[in-house]
Amino acid sequence: MKTAVSPTRAEDFPEWYQQVVAEGDLAVNSPVRGCMIIRPNGYGIWERIQKLLNDRIMETGHENLYFPLFIPLSFIGKEAQHVEGFAKEMAVVTHHRLKMIDGELKPDPESKLAEPLVVRPTSETIIGHHFRECAKSWRDLPLLWNQWANVVRWEMRTRLFLRTAEFLWQEGHTAHATGEEAREETMRMLEVYRTFAESVLAMPVIAGEKPAHERFPGAENTFSIEAMMQDGKALQAGTSHYLGTHFSTAQDIKYQNKEGELSYCHTASWGVSTRLIGGVIMTHGDDDGMRIPPRIAPKHVVILPILRDVPEDEAVKAYCESVAADLRAQSYAGEPVRVKVDLRDGRAVDKRWAWIKRGAPVICEIGGRDVASGNITFYRRDKLRDGEKLAVQSQPRAQFASGMPALLAEVQAELFTDAKKRLDANIVRDIRSMDELKAFFAPKEGENAENAFRGWLLVPWKRPEGAEGERILETLKQMKLTTRNIPLGQQGKPESPCIFTGHPADEMVLIARSY
Amino acid sequence: MKTAVSPTRAEDFPEWYQQVVAEGDLAVNSPVRGCMIIRPNGYGIWERIQKLLNDRIMETGHENLYFPLFIPLSFIGKEAQHVEGFAKEMAVVTHHRLKMIDGELKPDPESKLAEPLVVRPTSETIIGHHFRECAKSWRDLPLLWNQWANVVRWEMRTRLFLRTAEFLWQEGHTAHATGEEAREETMRMLEVYRTFAESVLAMPVIAGEKPAHERFPGAENTFSIEAMMQDGKALQAGTSHYLGTHFSTAQDIKYQNKEGELSYCHTASWGVSTRLIGGVIMTHGDDDGMRIPPRIAPKHVVILPILRDVPEDEAVKAYCESVAADLRAQSYAGEPVRVKVDLRDGRAVDKRWAWIKRGAPVICEIGGRDVASGNITFYRRDKLRDGEKLAVQSQPRAQFASGMPALLAEVQAELFTDAKKRLDANIVRDIRSMDELKAFFAPKEGENAENAFRGWLLVPWKRPEGAEGERILETLKQMKLTTRNIPLGQQGKPESPCIFTGHPADEMVLIARSY
Repeated sequence: MKTAVSPTRAEDFPEWYQQVVAEGDLAVNSPVRGCMIIRPNGYGIWERIQKLLNDRIMETGHENLYFPLFIPLSFIGKEAQHVEGFAKEMAVVTHHRLKMIDGELKPDPESKLAEPLVVRPTSETIIGHHFRECAKSWRDLPLLWNQWANVVRWEMRTRLFLRTAEFLWQEGHTAHATGEEAREETMRMLEVYRTFAESVLAMPVIAGEKPAHERFPGAENTFSIEAMMQDGKALQAGTSHYLGTHFSTAQDIKYQNKEGELSYCHTASWGVSTRLIGGVIMTHGDDDGMRIPPRIAPKHVVILPILRDVPEDEAVKAYCESVAADLRAQSYAGEPVRVKVDLRDGRAVDKRWAWIKRGAPVICEIGGRDVASGNITFYRRDKLRDGEKLAVQSQPRAQFASGMPALLAEVQAELFTDAKKRLDANIVRDIRSMDELKAFFAPKEGENAENAFRGWLLVPWKRPEGAEGERILETLKQMKLTTRNIPLGQQGKPESPCIFTGHPADEMVLIARSY
Repeated sequence: MKTAVSPTRAEDFPEWYQQVVAEGDLAVNSPVRGCMIIRPNGYGIWERIQKLLNDRIMETGHENLYFPLFIPLSFIGKEAQHVEGFAKEMAVVTHHRLKMIDGELKPDPESKLAEPLVVRPTSETIIGHHFRECAKSWRDLPLLWNQWANVVRWEMRTRLFLRTAEFLWQEGHTAHATGEEAREETMRMLEVYRTFAESVLAMPVIAGEKPAHERFPGAENTFSIEAMMQDGKALQAGTSHYLGTHFSTAQDIKYQNKEGELSYCHTASWGVSTRLIGGVIMTHGDDDGMRIPPRIAPKHVVILPILRDVPEDEAVKAYCESVAADLRAQSYAGEPVRVKVDLRDGRAVDKRWAWIKRGAPVICEIGGRDVASGNITFYRRDKLRDGEKLAVQSQPRAQFASGMPALLAEVQAELFTDAKKRLDANIVRDIRSMDELKAFFAPKEGENAENAFRGWLLVPWKRPEGAEGERILETLKQMKLTTRNIPLGQQGKPESPCIFTGHPADEMVLIARSY
């Protein structure tokens, strides 16, 4: 069967991903190393994510602020002294002027900054500085701040959306009077991420705590949501950290409590990024390209008039606009249905395939025959094929418009159900020894190891410590495996012992290959 | 009279501005030179501006994309060769890693970039690069792109919102097959800015063309909207440029036309920034602080429960929440009324003044007596005072809620009307000589020249050229005056001669002090 994207997922998943991103008008590489250009379809998804996640962030009592792009080097230096495992790959601004020198534009040596500035890799330190300015008394707390911004982390190996030098994200930073409140905040936002991923992105996730060696540097606890991609790998899709008084001690963030004493704030932070778009692609994309869940689709319905350069074209266009108006009068998930009538020049069949690859949930093709019959001919992107053929449908226009909210809700629900089935079916829970684990991930004969679907393991373990811990992590690393998280809501301790050490196990931990 | 902000506008306008920004929770200076922290009230205004302007940008057929923060130095170098008056004050990234050297964190010498990167001062060149990739055939045109982003221009003297090293903006960049289409685009977006400023920001403006010496470097024509601040100075609030084939030639942006020949695109660009917030403050603020037009107010109505640490407080809170729910069920300008019940600890009178200085359009104070009578006690921020006293109002709650949309519409309209009257009354049109011009702007006895209101002049001139032009500009500069723009829609040529040269005049030009 000829698919719209080549190679298929089964043939070469990484290359399939690159093709879906390119053909789906989602993003392209830019001439700046590691930085992407987010194309209209990709940015439209990000705008939907921003709006719907922002609504949830506001509903939980947070405020949006905007902090500087640059961080003074001394701020970073202070953090570096306090934080082990501190990453140092950052873009550093050292000059503030260009000058033509010998006919060439260069940084003007006379404009060298007394103190270099770092392009924010995260805003912990600069926001901490403002916490210190604002948290005077217990009356000022909690401070519940969020920022939507671009950040930069110099990466050697980049991949569109998944790992780029510059990416877009939101970062929440909160300061509280007590550890209990800060912990509640950490878990509240993890739950916001979990429900957002599932109900909006249609992307099922496992929420849990990261093992100590995967914590955010300086955090007391780090929690994540983990999603399963169609190649069986895990994608960390969001994190929420309880930072204790670690950052407030380093930055001297104190408040006067009700008893009049100075006390350190307890802080938390949480974030998701444009990486989510990579997750959506690898959760829902198929061999014909992108499939966008309706909640985050820039357009729900794309209408393609079939024009033949004849006077009757005008009637076709008018019909399309009138159908679009009917659809826009309908409401899905609390907002008007989003419709585009694509009047660009080009062959109708080319435009159809372009929108299929872009993943618009519903694609209509309207020609003179439809106008005459009062019908709508359309494709559902999530159920595009009937065998090798396209599954074309037809409905009277009134029925099509009035049924659109229910149709979109069905698409959203089915995309989630399919992904949830895949997740549930591919978490293996009965591995009880290292030999079984090794056998599970070992390449099979004739298999392309790079592209083999394996899924995840949920295994009993004792939280590793010291040299024994190092050895366990090294063993996993050699197999290109990582611990993902310790799922929340575990009832009691496992009966079986730790598969790594044979010690009595504390809990079950997820093991997987990952992005 | 004691005002909430000190000094008053009449006493010291620049200092009044700083105080309104600080006390209004709009922005504060950050520890990073020239960069601001945008506080929740200021960022909330920006979010409203983003949403409502973005709607208009989408309605006119544009798409949002996102381009890299960094521009390779060679791109800038190419532009510098083509553009006179090219500004060189930019943040330059030269290293990509930090390293602990002798116990101090420093840029790692081994991480020096082969080619420095510039933090975008504008994205013309990188977007031009992508135009080149996308504009293959006439079928691909027009390309109508917009970006919401942060940009950096190293500024020596900064002022919150008005001139900061980093600011937020939108930049539209479009590529067209013909000059006619690109010119139409330029004027369309100027008109979008004009109507947006007037109907959304309640800020009347004069739209016109910038004289040659004030053009964007490389532009064929630059147009602006100019707003009059309450100190009589002009603020350039938005610009729209027709760039001809200047940038497409420099960047080799060609398309194949219908005849199969390669032809240069005609490009346009247009932008507004967080500077608009400064304009709104200086248009609508009064001696009690900020006044936010309802269309861009983060909250329309703020409800302050008067609590006395008694059991009856619960009934007061419940009443407030119930009034808030009634208000949210009302719709103003196509969206639900935005309400905040402020339950923070603190004295009611302090909270009242905090919200007055923040400029919330309607502020309610609800105590036990209101609950008993079923009334609402409130202030209109735009008509706060009755003489020296606060103009407190009271209404039955049902009437208050149902009347809110009309009340907000009235506030919006009256803020605009007041500002429009000020603008119209202070454009002086009968100056006919340089002596009259000098007398108009000369300081009067006993007057603080820095703070003296003057307004604008609309005078006849001949577009200055060559040495004569230089001399005119120098004369104006010495008087701290600038040419603002040549208002659109002038009927015929002025009868009086150019006031600078005595030559027959081409048109009327606006002269003013400016930000």
